[in-house]
Amino acid sequence: MKLLSFRYRETEYWGVKYEEGIYYSDQLMTHFPTLLSVIENYDHLNLKKDLNKFVESESIEILPPIYPKKNIMCIGKNYKAHAYEMTTHNPDSVPEYPVVFTKSPNSIIAHEKNIMAHANFTSQLDYEGELAVVIGKLGKDIKREEAQDYIFGYTILNDVTARDLQKKHQQFYRGKSLDTFAPLGPYIMTKDHIEDPQNLKVQTYVNDELRQNGNTKEMIFPIDELIEALSEGTTLEPGDIIATGTPSGVGKGFNPPKFLKSGDTIKISIEGIGELVNQVK
Amino acid sequence: MKLLSFRYRETEYWGVKYEEGIYYSDQLMTHFPTLLSVIENYDHLNLKKDLNKFVESESIEILPPIYPKKNIMCIGKNYKAHAYEMTTHNPDSVPEYPVVFTKSPNSIIAHEKNIMAHANFTSQLDYEGELAVVIGKLGKDIKREEAQDYIFGYTILNDVTARDLQKKHQQFYRGKSLDTFAPLGPYIMTKDHIEDPQNLKVQTYVNDELRQNGNTKEMIFPIDELIEALSEGTTLEPGDIIATGTPSGVGKGFNPPKFLKSGDTIKISIEGIGELVNQVK
Repeated sequence: MKLLSFRYRETEYWGVKYEEGIYYSDQLMTHFPTLLSVIENYDHLNLKKDLNKFVESESIEILPPIYPKKNIMCIGKNYKAHAYEMTTHNPDSVPEYPVVFTKSPNSIIAHEKNIMAHANFTSQLDYEGELAVVIGKLGKDIKREEAQDYIFGYTILNDVTARDLQKKHQQFYRGKSLDTFAPLGPYIMTKDHIEDPQNLKVQTYVNDELRQNGNTKEMIFPIDELIEALSEGTTLEPGDIIATGTPSGVGKGFNPPKFLKSGDTIKISIEGIGELVNQVK
Repeated sequence: MKLLSFRYRETEYWGVKYEEGIYYSDQLMTHFPTLLSVIENYDHLNLKKDLNKFVESESIEILPPIYPKKNIMCIGKNYKAHAYEMTTHNPDSVPEYPVVFTKSPNSIIAHEKNIMAHANFTSQLDYEGELAVVIGKLGKDIKREEAQDYIFGYTILNDVTARDLQKKHQQFYRGKSLDTFAPLGPYIMTKDHIEDPQNLKVQTYVNDELRQNGNTKEMIFPIDELIEALSEGTTLEPGDIIATGTPSGVGKGFNPPKFLKSGDTIKISIEGIGELVNQVK
């Protein structure tokens, strides 16, 4: 199912998106007020049966699907060609273990909301199209063989980055966590709808120019290994988001670099999951 | 005031600690169920007047003062002598800009709770005694001159670290975020009780051996500059925690290193704020 959060007539809802429109339920909202609470209680719900209200897609405003209770966990340099482009093709740049940094949940914005240019703090605004995994079940020390059981579904993250801040602060958090730097959504696709998450095209367009054209099969550490590594000694919980890294083709990778400027529109398209579109303002 | 969260007769409360014991209020709890909600609404509360119940300190179990809504923001290498000890005295190790990484809020444990040794994942368990700032007011682009207005109070963090994981994953998040790696508390001291936060002794004892003996006046980036840097383009909100870095004397800084082992007790004492004690198990 394609789950989403939305605003309709000044009220916030969650629902399921179908071709004809969106189904939702006032009654379920009273017990499960957010999509995060739905994910936490998904085994006890029957969304196919209990959503009895309908609204057309044109009548709603899409909201971020969820706000996790902690920072988004992001994987750096998880595509070899991207590791190369960030380091003038240094083969040592390919990590031996997952590189994990985080992004503040305050930075999350919805599909079609504007990314602030923050021109007073950065002159190197960049995009990173990424497949994001949403955790569905509490777990620790998860083995890669059982990792699938802990996945709720998938969505799209634009890991917007101020390259100059990323560099000057050494650790990545600062350059990754300015307000509006985490466009997320528009939908969370439940895992049963994704046949093979390690074979999905990931494409990023800036103003209709194709910049990133990758496939999740190119990941250095596939999703099951990431979940194993991230859960070693650390409890993962429903609603946690793991952004799995970006393919090559980011703005910094071009010579000269192609950083974002006000007015640019970024569209990230992931096969079977959807399109996330945001404009820089 | 010295604020705390605690459990008493199987119910969770927050209250104010005085020498004779703890004052709290059932009635206020119904409107402000957590200390985080108290911080968010502090201007509308009169805690000196409205806390009408009393319990002795011996009758309660201390809980973590708050769980923030995002990861704890931590400053790396903010004491020159610590930057040196981590890099065999390389003067280039002193950062030009604050180094910011994060720690999962899932890792938070209370005073006197056990730190898990995680012996299957790390053989380099280490401590870091730190002054932690609790933000009290929503703000963005905060200038250092007005930073004091955004502080609610101060507490203590033990930034427990698996040095081997910190190194192998490059970015610090993983080695800092194993379960129980964030002992926090026992109290949040409101800022009006701290005359000069940049002149507080920070001492860490391991089994009564004094290992860290610093003073917050040695910070490379003082608190007001940290708040300025962290809020550039990024909204800070009530309950956000900034751990301001650790003085020299961590286990890795000794030759040979003095890593923690099961049974060790770590006590962090910060002048005017309190003592945070935890044992490794």
